[in-house]
Amino acid sequence: MLHPSSKAYVPFVSVDNMMKLVHHIGLENMLRGLAYEIETDFKRWELFDKTPRVASHSDVGVIELMPTSDGEAYGFKYVNGHPKNTSEGLQTVTAFGLLADVYTGYPTLLSEMTMLTAIRTAATSAMAAKHLAPKGAKTMAMIGNGAQSEFQTLAMKAIIGLEAVRLYDIDPEATKKAARNLEGMGVQVTKCKSAEESMEGAEIITTCTADKQCATILTDNMIGAGVHINAIGGDCPGKTELAAEILHRSDIFVEFPPQTRIEGEIQQLPQDHPVTELWQVITGQAKGRTSDKQITLFDSVGFAIEDFSALRYVREHIKGTDFFQNLDMLADPDDPRDLFGMLKRAG
Amino acid sequence: MLHPSSKAYVPFVSVDNMMKLVHHIGLENMLRGLAYEIETDFKRWELFDKTPRVASHSDVGVIELMPTSDGEAYGFKYVNGHPKNTSEGLQTVTAFGLLADVYTGYPTLLSEMTMLTAIRTAATSAMAAKHLAPKGAKTMAMIGNGAQSEFQTLAMKAIIGLEAVRLYDIDPEATKKAARNLEGMGVQVTKCKSAEESMEGAEIITTCTADKQCATILTDNMIGAGVHINAIGGDCPGKTELAAEILHRSDIFVEFPPQTRIEGEIQQLPQDHPVTELWQVITGQAKGRTSDKQITLFDSVGFAIEDFSALRYVREHIKGTDFFQNLDMLADPDDPRDLFGMLKRAG
Repeated sequence: MLHPSSKAYVPFVSVDNMMKLVHHIGLENMLRGLAYEIETDFKRWELFDKTPRVASHSDVGVIELMPTSDGEAYGFKYVNGHPKNTSEGLQTVTAFGLLADVYTGYPTLLSEMTMLTAIRTAATSAMAAKHLAPKGAKTMAMIGNGAQSEFQTLAMKAIIGLEAVRLYDIDPEATKKAARNLEGMGVQVTKCKSAEESMEGAEIITTCTADKQCATILTDNMIGAGVHINAIGGDCPGKTELAAEILHRSDIFVEFPPQTRIEGEIQQLPQDHPVTELWQVITGQAKGRTSDKQITLFDSVGFAIEDFSALRYVREHIKGTDFFQNLDMLADPDDPRDLFGMLKRAG
Repeated sequence: MLHPSSKAYVPFVSVDNMMKLVHHIGLENMLRGLAYEIETDFKRWELFDKTPRVASHSDVGVIELMPTSDGEAYGFKYVNGHPKNTSEGLQTVTAFGLLADVYTGYPTLLSEMTMLTAIRTAATSAMAAKHLAPKGAKTMAMIGNGAQSEFQTLAMKAIIGLEAVRLYDIDPEATKKAARNLEGMGVQVTKCKSAEESMEGAEIITTCTADKQCATILTDNMIGAGVHINAIGGDCPGKTELAAEILHRSDIFVEFPPQTRIEGEIQQLPQDHPVTELWQVITGQAKGRTSDKQITLFDSVGFAIEDFSALRYVREHIKGTDFFQNLDMLADPDDPRDLFGMLKRAG
């Protein structure tokens, strides 16, 4: 084995190391830390290169690349979405991501992002709820009890002080799984038999279902005044969760409009329907919640900047730890023009 | 350390393993094998998802993602281009790539592509020359003696029977390096003091210079009738190598017009200037070289399908070898909806 120079190495965080890092930091601490980093990057929103993700659709799913850059660092995430995977014993969503140095183009971090995406999505939801949900909200309806549900619950606890979650899924086994996982985590858990039941007394309603179709998880009559809806399951063309009537009664907040118009709940609305960009609420340029009666809707599809923030956080927090390995991913000849000589000498 | 299931693993080919694979197969064999796979994929061109690469430009370089899919496999390459890197002891171009299964969205191969890109670029050039260069061409002028030059020379030898190369670079050290590397490789090497000298008797002229600017490496009066120009250095907006007059005298062949119009030599021409797509020459739908007097120009910028072919080749050829390692890149909980439980149990 040849020994590449340090320039040839890229730190890689495996799933195993990511889980170790999460336990080392503590999940709730990490959710707060990530929410802080995401909020920080939303505050400097205008500085980023932004583009709708680059999607490759098939009959059964989608594979996406989500790049962005703040001018110093470049990041992208690879992520798939295959709702049918679950029935085959596979993840609906798997992901990995990369950071690179804009000045040299050299990668500086490769990381698993299946786990990290779950954590950053929950942190983003809770950060948005901090700005949009009724003050002092204590109870959340969690509709769809798949891989995101426990992360959503703990993020709302860690970031806005949620005390109770009311779980509902069309599959009672999913609800049992989520309830079991949330035992002893400091949140009161209620298993519900219908979406309506889950919403009793809830100030926040989170929907996270995985069907790749226009579903109506929430109908108009289910939604009372004053709630905050955190809609995270509708995230690709043809996949929505809310009845259009709800959208017309809500003030709608989004990440990046050009992407959300294609992928979010608002794909059901005319292209010019007014929406507010979340970053403008955070910077004070736009209003968030203005009354007790208002229905706020965070129509979240996930945006590249959130992944960028998460990767920045990981790169910072693996320093001085053993939670990464060095990958020999970059050729580094002594003379950069002499790639051939490097190959020849390896023979 | 937990032991992830086999579904969680992605085979990774490091730079060291790529070099071992190349030597195991033999570079000229591999160039021929890659040219065959690229030609095979060009024959089924219409079947691919094609999109211009997604580029993030800065003052000093560019970082690009190049995705494509044939409906069964999905592939993308990350690649940077930073001409100023050389003076800092870094590669101008580094790259890695990924293949994934369209049906599940799961990655199936992660590979270094700095070395592999050099090899596939050379294989593509020689495959194009097979269709476009004068029959029986024996001599190539190689202008720009950086990291690509030896690969280009050996690919032309392996695929179209090149016997002699005439090297020129503005930096004589680069020419010396290339000449030294090509010693004993079965090609007659001549070091030249000017671009004009390098073109004496050459039927093929390859330009591969790295300046990020509109340069004029070839002027109109330097180009005689009947030659084939293989222009690979002009590959981003604002970076060209040929005088526009040469383009007007040439029949121009390109990979993917929407990308080449932005990045290739033809960025100097009106958007409707006629060009021929190389895949149509290969399938017989369009004519390649039709006369001895004709100047053919392959205005090559590199396209995602070539990387896809190269990754397919690598995935096939690492089977049964030790030239890869398994990366724990994908979370694989027992119950795919139970990502949180997997994390909890790892604690």
